[in-house]
Amino acid sequence: MSAAVSPLAPTSVPDLPPIDGVRLATAAAGIRYKGRTDVLLALLEPGTTVAGVFTRSKCPSAPVEWCRDKMKRGKARALVVNSGNANAFTGKTGREACKFTAAIASRAAGCKPAEVFLASTGVIGEPLKAQAFDGVMDGMVAAATPEPWPDAAKAIMTTDTFPKVATATVKIGKAKVTLNGIAKGAGMIAPDMATMLAFVFTDAAIAAPALRALLAEGTVDTFNAVTVDGDTSTSDTLLMFATGKAKNAPKISRASDPRLKAFRKALNAVLGNLAEQIARDGEGARKLVEITVEGAVSKTSARRIAMSIANSPLVKTALAGEDANWGRVVMAVGKAGEPANRDKLSIWFNGIRVAHKGYRDPAYDEAEVSAAMKKPEISLKVALGLGRGRDRVLTCDLTKEYVAINGDYRS
Amino acid sequence: MSAAVSPLAPTSVPDLPPIDGVRLATAAAGIRYKGRTDVLLALLEPGTTVAGVFTRSKCPSAPVEWCRDKMKRGKARALVVNSGNANAFTGKTGREACKFTAAIASRAAGCKPAEVFLASTGVIGEPLKAQAFDGVMDGMVAAATPEPWPDAAKAIMTTDTFPKVATATVKIGKAKVTLNGIAKGAGMIAPDMATMLAFVFTDAAIAAPALRALLAEGTVDTFNAVTVDGDTSTSDTLLMFATGKAKNAPKISRASDPRLKAFRKALNAVLGNLAEQIARDGEGARKLVEITVEGAVSKTSARRIAMSIANSPLVKTALAGEDANWGRVVMAVGKAGEPANRDKLSIWFNGIRVAHKGYRDPAYDEAEVSAAMKKPEISLKVALGLGRGRDRVLTCDLTKEYVAINGDYRS
Repeated sequence: MSAAVSPLAPTSVPDLPPIDGVRLATAAAGIRYKGRTDVLLALLEPGTTVAGVFTRSKCPSAPVEWCRDKMKRGKARALVVNSGNANAFTGKTGREACKFTAAIASRAAGCKPAEVFLASTGVIGEPLKAQAFDGVMDGMVAAATPEPWPDAAKAIMTTDTFPKVATATVKIGKAKVTLNGIAKGAGMIAPDMATMLAFVFTDAAIAAPALRALLAEGTVDTFNAVTVDGDTSTSDTLLMFATGKAKNAPKISRASDPRLKAFRKALNAVLGNLAEQIARDGEGARKLVEITVEGAVSKTSARRIAMSIANSPLVKTALAGEDANWGRVVMAVGKAGEPANRDKLSIWFNGIRVAHKGYRDPAYDEAEVSAAMKKPEISLKVALGLGRGRDRVLTCDLTKEYVAINGDYRS
Repeated sequence: MSAAVSPLAPTSVPDLPPIDGVRLATAAAGIRYKGRTDVLLALLEPGTTVAGVFTRSKCPSAPVEWCRDKMKRGKARALVVNSGNANAFTGKTGREACKFTAAIASRAAGCKPAEVFLASTGVIGEPLKAQAFDGVMDGMVAAATPEPWPDAAKAIMTTDTFPKVATATVKIGKAKVTLNGIAKGAGMIAPDMATMLAFVFTDAAIAAPALRALLAEGTVDTFNAVTVDGDTSTSDTLLMFATGKAKNAPKISRASDPRLKAFRKALNAVLGNLAEQIARDGEGARKLVEITVEGAVSKTSARRIAMSIANSPLVKTALAGEDANWGRVVMAVGKAGEPANRDKLSIWFNGIRVAHKGYRDPAYDEAEVSAAMKKPEISLKVALGLGRGRDRVLTCDLTKEYVAINGDYRS
């Protein structure tokens, strides 16, 4: 496994301000790793609303099932996240581990177990020894403060090479509200799996149904538009908490409230920023690749074609080889099964048109393209010439390092 | 690129007998390669019927469009295949190259251009210089003989590491008929693409509609059940020719004719054999992997789940690492979107059950599994416990060699 920080890591990391109503603590419970923190506790003041988006896997982890069930009430008082063990494919013991963790956290935090949300990431198929949380829970509740956002982002990492944070401050009406987000990406730990976890906190006062609508809407072009290898984790979890504790924050009950205009934009920016960091920390990634498809018959069609390109091993290996291989892009467009007309297709790499109307662009300069492909960030644009459907997804290249990370060990 | 023969290559290669009504010749037209043959001509006696199955790509190559169009008449007198250039994404010049090639072949063979079938494999986006065929066509017609099957299989190779042939002899009624097949698999040539081409010849007398039905039916569990990397070529072509020249061969007009029983079985065996050789020669392949899914709600559902496992980079890299990583198999089952119940799932690697009813099999012996995973052939079985749907697909592992073959060069 690679220990070095991804060469695509952001060069500047923002300071995350406190969020009224949120206190954080981390601890080393010894779930799997030695000498590092592996549990995050977030304490949320009474009145906090919650919304979530989860993996579409038909075989989800126990914490995903727990959260889906408790989400119905829309109220949260605590979040417990652990790294090192995903509590997935653990049968009845997995459900018991969730129940136990929620019980001790609720006791320590003074709330109901159903108000405790859970997420786990790490090895799958191994029972999660939730008893380990018992020794650290009271200490975390006592130690929780509004400040330690960087520590929180670190405690949830698995093989991520850098912690992922994002923040924004905007107004709802006359009240200043803050959004802080942390995430972890596609890191793998033997013997098991990539998991995307992200948590966004705000001191805005937004009712659970409106929060749900905002989050669902915000996910479409951010977390759902990122792919590393096309594999979907059993544990993908995005939770958002709104404490309502910002000074003079108006109570918002509908997602269509016009006062949410700036907030919605800021939320989408935070989600987009975290999602991009996940692509930047894709396993073995050496190139951040933005794929834009335009001229499709619809946005849905454009998304399917963009994802077909983004998940094609032949396109991804060509990108790793700094090869503007538009032939493979044509292949990936063709296999998407969406309307496409070969003779109307044009393709650009970093702004240079290499294919036009179904043919190699006669003006294309190989030396110029070669130089452009050496950049760490590649934009690949496909114009289909059929309609007005447009979409964009982010991915990374497929390198030998990816194979090494995922294949060079025995569990 | 790797020049060595795949370690998974078949250890014995059958001799292909002559097929009445088929004569073959190969030549070096210098399309791209130096010092090797790159054109195959098959001459077919009058009365030969033809059927075909093609790529589902929405951006097919010019020869695929040519064959689809000519296929309607159901009659063939010649087949011209070249390696080195796929004549794909070549616009109008691609269509002209097809027309020109068919014209010179028809003149040399004494048939109509519409009775000439074409296939090309190799680089895409480069114009195919069909004029090169002009210099070799008359010579090939003059030199064509019933014997050179191994030469035919070699002339159509790109980066295949071994030629692929298969044969079978069976009876239709009292007549002995023969089936010979040749194929090429997922080899890549800069800057280019994987293409599957396969051609089956028989001296049976089968009307075109019946031949079409037999071929479509035979493809389902053979060529359509093989995946190397989930990428679909613009050029995939499977053609079958029936000369009707076997002594006393009864004329068969319907695929449901009971006399076809043994023939159908032999055809499926030839197709299955060629398809398996393609998996054995997958780029960088070190493991041949058979994935069986049973207990699904239907065969279609089982196929989708098997393909989700077969195309998962995380499963494929684990197999390369000789890791019986059932957690990733669960992930791939979960992401297929088909009915699955985590708590009923069982998984076997080479006959050893590693997970049972949603939990790690308590009886599973790590040392025994490790030893089993070192074999070059791996069978991976998933039982869903829901219904009677069953299916099987073949694939190979994803190695650093795959990334090297497809990424370690600039076109």
